[in-house]
This record gives sequence, C-alpha cells and structure tokens, in this order.
Amino acid sequence: MITLYGANASPFVRKVMAVLNIKEIEYKHIPSMPFSGDKELAKVSPLEKVPALVDGDLNIADSKVICRYLESAYPEAPVYPTDVKDRARADWLEEYGGTALAEAAAGIFFNRFMVPNVFKRPVDEEVVDDLINNKLPPLLDYVESQVPADGFIFGDLTVADLALASPFVNARYAQYTIDAAKWPRMSGLFERVTAHSAVAPLLEAEAAAFGG
Amino acid sequence: MITLYGANASPFVRKVMAVLNIKEIEYKHIPSMPFSGDKELAKVSPLEKVPALVDGDLNIADSKVICRYLESAYPEAPVYPTDVKDRARADWLEEYGGTALAEAAAGIFFNRFMVPNVFKRPVDEEVVDDLINNKLPPLLDYVESQVPADGFIFGDLTVADLALASPFVNARYAQYTIDAAKWPRMSGLFERVTAHSAVAPLLEAEAAAFGG
Repeated sequence: MITLYGANASPFVRKVMAVLNIKEIEYKHIPSMPFSGDKELAKVSPLEKVPALVDGDLNIADSKVICRYLESAYPEAPVYPTDVKDRARADWLEEYGGTALAEAAAGIFFNRFMVPNVFKRPVDEEVVDDLINNKLPPLLDYVESQVPADGFIFGDLTVADLALASPFVNARYAQYTIDAAKWPRMSGLFERVTAHSAVAPLLEAEAAAFGG
Repeated sequence: MITLYGANASPFVRKVMAVLNIKEIEYKHIPSMPFSGDKELAKVSPLEKVPALVDGDLNIADSKVICRYLESAYPEAPVYPTDVKDRARADWLEEYGGTALAEAAAGIFFNRFMVPNVFKRPVDEEVVDDLINNKLPPLLDYVESQVPADGFIFGDLTVADLALASPFVNARYAQYTIDAAKWPRMSGLFERVTAHSAVAPLLEAEAAAFGG
C-alpha cells in the first residue's frame, strides 16, 4: 500500500493526489506539514518538503519524481503524453508550473491567507500587489501562449495541466482569480481542470477543511 | 542538429554536456549567461535559466527535462537506470543534487569566486562560512548514506552521479573540497565522476576558460 505524506492544500500534494485518483490507486494519506519539525516527515523527506511517498522499500520526495514514478509503476490511465517530444513539453510545463508560477501564485496564498490566518501577522499588501501586478502577469502571458482554447494541453488531462492549474487553487483561497479577459485560455483551462472528476472531489474536501 | 544554450561552468549545463558526451550526440553549443538580458536565450528559455535546448521544433529548458528528453529520444548509452524503482531513486537524487545541494555548493562558488572575480565586490566570509560549516554538512551526511564506496550509484555512470558531483566542481573553483575523512564515499564518487571519460574533457575545457 502506498503512503503519501503532505498537507493536501499544497499545490504539489494536490497534483499527486489527482494523479493517484486518475490512476485509481488506493493509498494512505498522512497530511504532514512541511518545515514544521515533523520527525515522521523528516524520515521520509530529507529536505522536509512535501509530498513524499513510500511504496514498499521505495521512499521518494518531490511531486515530479513521484508523478513520474507512478506513471512507470502504474502505467494504466497515463498522466503524461506518450509522444517523446510531447512528453518533453509536458515535463517542461510541469517544471514551469512548479517553479516560477507556483512561487508567484502560491506566494499570493501565503502572504494573503497563511500570514493572517495561520501566522496571525498583518498582510503586507505591497508584497501581494507586487506578486499580482508585476510577477504573475508575464508568467501568465507565457502560459497563455502554451495552452489550448478548449480541452486539455495534450488531449486528456495530464500532469502538465495539473501543474499549471494547481497553484491557482491556492491563489483562489486568497481571492485571486485569473482574469478571463486578459488570459482567456488559462482561465478556461483552470476551470476545466478544477471541474475534472479526479480533481473536483479533492477541492471539496479542501474547502471543507478550510471551513469554506 | 541539437543546440544547447548555457555557460558550461553552470552545474546544470555541465550535467547535460556530460549526457551528450555519454550518448555521443553532436550538438552546437551557445554559452549563454543566465539572467544577463540575453535576448537569444530569453527566446528559448522563458525564465532565462540555463540550460535550454532546441531540437528541431522542440524547445525545452531545465536540465532535468533536457536529460529525460535525451534519454527518450536517444536511448543508446542510457543515463538513467532501467529498473522502475531505481529510476525513481535516480530521479530523486537528481532533484536533490539540483536543489539543496546545488544551492549550497554553488553558493560557495558564487560568493567566493563570482563575487570577487566577476562582480568585483568583496567576499562576505560570514556567508561562505555558513554555507561550508552549517548548510552543507547535513546535506553531505545524507548524500553519504546514498552513495556506494566504489563505482557509481547504479553501476554505470548515470544522471544521479552527475547531479550530485557537478555542483562540487564549482565549489572546487572556490577552493572547497569535500572532506574525505568525513564523507569518504561522496569524496570518492566525486573523484570517479570527474575522472570519467565523458566528464574529464569538459573540466579541462572549463579550466582553460578559467585560466586554470
């Protein structure tokens, strides 16, 4: 039985949970918080990041590494395209979604939601404004050039769609919505990903946890 | 013909060049500097990071994405293990080498070599000491638990070995050497990787460029 470690409001944990749903893999979930001094997490995730996954004698961390492993070990219901160049494009979009885009979008969430609600400190509106008005727009411009007007990027839902959309679930908890007038394709992709049958139940469970 | 963008003293570009050597793939090399306002680089690498690679109509950035693509498109002379769990472990070690370990080891290089020689500013010895004495030792302790006393991690040289060793080539330019008394396995692995026929010629070319 697979064990997945990591709080489900992490954009990266959410991505892995969606992949587990798509592949209909049963797993045990331990909602560890990263960087919280959780000794159980430190044992399975040397950098104390989430997600981490244990499958028998295998212990890995990092959502990209985990998704790739799940694809190889549980190949039914693929979550990456099979064409070699499409697969490389999907890997690149996954990387893009998990680095610059996640930093900006999850940064909005961190500064506007976590800081006041969890850390009980005042929101620095200057930081939030900079993320929304300076950091995020050029990233969204690039994403807009990479995603289709309809459907998913490679036909069926893949990790590329999940990686681009997941950070904006967090941003939405902080009242940030992708402007559909400026970025209609990415705004539409976000709606389609979050409505997908592998994703929507995850978001309902999260909203319940957030008292939403 | 493949075109590879990125200064060859980058730990990530070096890793990709070693993979291209192992696979005996011919390529054109453009030694772009990251974050330097290089417009040619920005066209192929949206985040202006290196390495970036163009192969026909495919354009990808990030060394992990590139190495994975090269493995799929040019499968001869594999650079990842084939067993599914070993492959996942290799992916994880590649991630570890490219994040926390690269930040610390390349941080020594940046602060002790680039700052005085390229940016012509004084070295902040406090920052360098913190990297060497606080940040790096626990990372090396973990790596030491993951690498063998002889040979490479998965038998033949793979991306996992390259990703763990490459940042320490940079640290060596800043007079940092892995202490063989404390970390004999990683110290030995570093020696074996840098002596490998796919890597040693790269280091000779770098040393010539650095006037070494």
